[in-house]
Amino acid sequence: MAQTNGDAVPASPKAEFLSVESILEEHVPADKLAQVKGVLYGLNCGKPVAAVPLPAELTSAAAASGYDLQAYRFDAAPEQLRPPRIVRIGLVQNGIKAPTTAPYAEQREAIHQRVRELIDAAGAAGVQVLCLQEAWHMPFAFCTREKAWTEFAESVEGPSTRLCQELARKHNMVIVNPILERDEAHGQTIWNTAVVIGNNGNVIGKHRKNHIPRVGDFNESTYYMEGNTGHPVFETAFGKIAVNICYGRHHPMNWQGFGLNGAEIVFNPSATVGALSEPMWPIEARNAAIANSYYVGAINRVGTEVFPNAFTSGDGKPAHKDFGHFYGSSYVAAPDASRTPALARTLDGLMVADCDLNLCQQLKDKWGFRMTARYDMYAGQLARYVQHDFKPQVIRDPSLE
Amino acid sequence: MAQTNGDAVPASPKAEFLSVESILEEHVPADKLAQVKGVLYGLNCGKPVAAVPLPAELTSAAAASGYDLQAYRFDAAPEQLRPPRIVRIGLVQNGIKAPTTAPYAEQREAIHQRVRELIDAAGAAGVQVLCLQEAWHMPFAFCTREKAWTEFAESVEGPSTRLCQELARKHNMVIVNPILERDEAHGQTIWNTAVVIGNNGNVIGKHRKNHIPRVGDFNESTYYMEGNTGHPVFETAFGKIAVNICYGRHHPMNWQGFGLNGAEIVFNPSATVGALSEPMWPIEARNAAIANSYYVGAINRVGTEVFPNAFTSGDGKPAHKDFGHFYGSSYVAAPDASRTPALARTLDGLMVADCDLNLCQQLKDKWGFRMTARYDMYAGQLARYVQHDFKPQVIRDPSLE
Repeated sequence: MAQTNGDAVPASPKAEFLSVESILEEHVPADKLAQVKGVLYGLNCGKPVAAVPLPAELTSAAAASGYDLQAYRFDAAPEQLRPPRIVRIGLVQNGIKAPTTAPYAEQREAIHQRVRELIDAAGAAGVQVLCLQEAWHMPFAFCTREKAWTEFAESVEGPSTRLCQELARKHNMVIVNPILERDEAHGQTIWNTAVVIGNNGNVIGKHRKNHIPRVGDFNESTYYMEGNTGHPVFETAFGKIAVNICYGRHHPMNWQGFGLNGAEIVFNPSATVGALSEPMWPIEARNAAIANSYYVGAINRVGTEVFPNAFTSGDGKPAHKDFGHFYGSSYVAAPDASRTPALARTLDGLMVADCDLNLCQQLKDKWGFRMTARYDMYAGQLARYVQHDFKPQVIRDPSLE
Repeated sequence: MAQTNGDAVPASPKAEFLSVESILEEHVPADKLAQVKGVLYGLNCGKPVAAVPLPAELTSAAAASGYDLQAYRFDAAPEQLRPPRIVRIGLVQNGIKAPTTAPYAEQREAIHQRVRELIDAAGAAGVQVLCLQEAWHMPFAFCTREKAWTEFAESVEGPSTRLCQELARKHNMVIVNPILERDEAHGQTIWNTAVVIGNNGNVIGKHRKNHIPRVGDFNESTYYMEGNTGHPVFETAFGKIAVNICYGRHHPMNWQGFGLNGAEIVFNPSATVGALSEPMWPIEARNAAIANSYYVGAINRVGTEVFPNAFTSGDGKPAHKDFGHFYGSSYVAAPDASRTPALARTLDGLMVADCDLNLCQQLKDKWGFRMTARYDMYAGQLARYVQHDFKPQVIRDPSLE
């Protein structure tokens, strides 16, 4: 299976496997596999999440161009007073396409070219709402702590937005465009931002990443601060969407914030590596879909990015030039606890999913999480907790005195 | 493989399989299995979660008595200024042991006898903190909506507590005892309560279930209301523990509440059935362990319980006498996203796990979720949300007008 993140980029030092799903499909007999998948992937309307056929020219183009193309469908129960509200969403994961030593303009153009190809494929597949990965227009260079990489930062109206606007108009598609933003209105401040572009090509608005990591080589707080845009929900032609950027997925109240504002689909554009977070990846986005009764599109970067200068990682190990393997594995999780398989761990990819948005309210009514959430109790608890002299509610065993 | 929930109780109508793990172990080659488990079960200190050997007399007693006995170890990194703080915890899952048509005293005594056997085994295995499943002393009869079953309710000082006190003293063990509580001090009100018993046999305190389901046949709101005990953390001889009872696992802020008060281990005693919740089961407790940097012991009832009178389920299907299969599958999740395999789906069981509590603070420092949580922002959001005239933060695409 070809690595697709560019000949110029060395493969990961350890051999990476394609996907958990490909191993299970190869080795577990069909009847047993159905039992395993029933537990691990759930059921939608009582059945396994169904694959959707795509035109043969799309699947052969994907094979020829070396990216993983998968498509699935989430149904809802028929209702008497509402028609189905089926939205076709798309998730794009991609590696960088030129070595990090190439001129920046060339690096950006190489990624633009690949992403244009993938969005055009999504358009041909009828995708209506698409999300790209975090800071998709550049290498994820924050591991280096070098400030030169901030040249990649763009304004909300910059070249990556313009590309997405062109493609949004071309395909009548809402596009979520996560960029490294330079905020000219506030003295060239840098943010980690998702620009939401409507299906008519206009910028509807932006959301800035609420929670910023200081984990391992994710030195993002060296570059930008916590966002100041709250938890906006964007009402588009194809549903109410929101964006929980990367590390925000570890914060259940961040997911909840978008839910309280009415999101039906929340995208989680990410960039995360195997040794750090892979066991969390199938858990957090899915938990959010369950707890908040909405769809989640979880998107991760793919490939290994090698930087010009060696850097240390605060772990006592020798300086090195790469950050680990971005394991892709993008997937869609539904409010009924079902999910799609993951895209490949080692290939660019496009995940297509038909989502009946009626499922969101159906699950709210079935499980009643909003009704039973006791928000007033938690508003009080948090108001107390943020006081510096907060006293935890602890009952100490008196027999220990 | 023998069903252990009593000869008098019919097996589930559909054949139930033992566990996902047993299927994977049987069919997936070792090298591939390591890759799959690395993603699905995580790594602890860079290695698969290790099994711990138990004395041969314990494993042979478990086999002879038809329960699943498993033991694992979670390590933390060595520290210079703190010794390891290793606590051996135990989770017990069990079926009912007499038909639901038997006299209530006989039903309760039959369960007491089995649970005494399992706690004695835990004591022999050196377990220091043990938790039983939700309302373990009775069939989970709330599906029937019949009030007669409330006879099983007990005061906090009742017979099931007295059994646990005796065993706590005998084994120098903290025992979490989840009962259906009758509150004599408040006019015989019924609650769903966990009584926490110290290793000296004293009752340290109680916690009442914060969130009550109205889902499928879980007619619990017919019997009892939302708890009034907040999010207490119990400081025991072996660490700070808390109890998130059953449906509270679907509420991320409930998990968080115990974390804010300093819990190091949170038990989730549950009673839930396959068709309803099984795909959620591996997700929610584990997400809580990750997000709150504590251990979670997730415990589910096992077996199929058949009631004397047929009841309907609000789904248009004919009246029936059972509620579905309680799928067991109890497991321990660690703050580093690793977890144990699950206990069997069809057998009583005892899960033993050594948990180095130092791992909690180490993960807090590694991931910084507390530091980056922006509680003040969420305190404000919730205070606004609970107002009846709350206006969601929605940005509508102006081009749609």
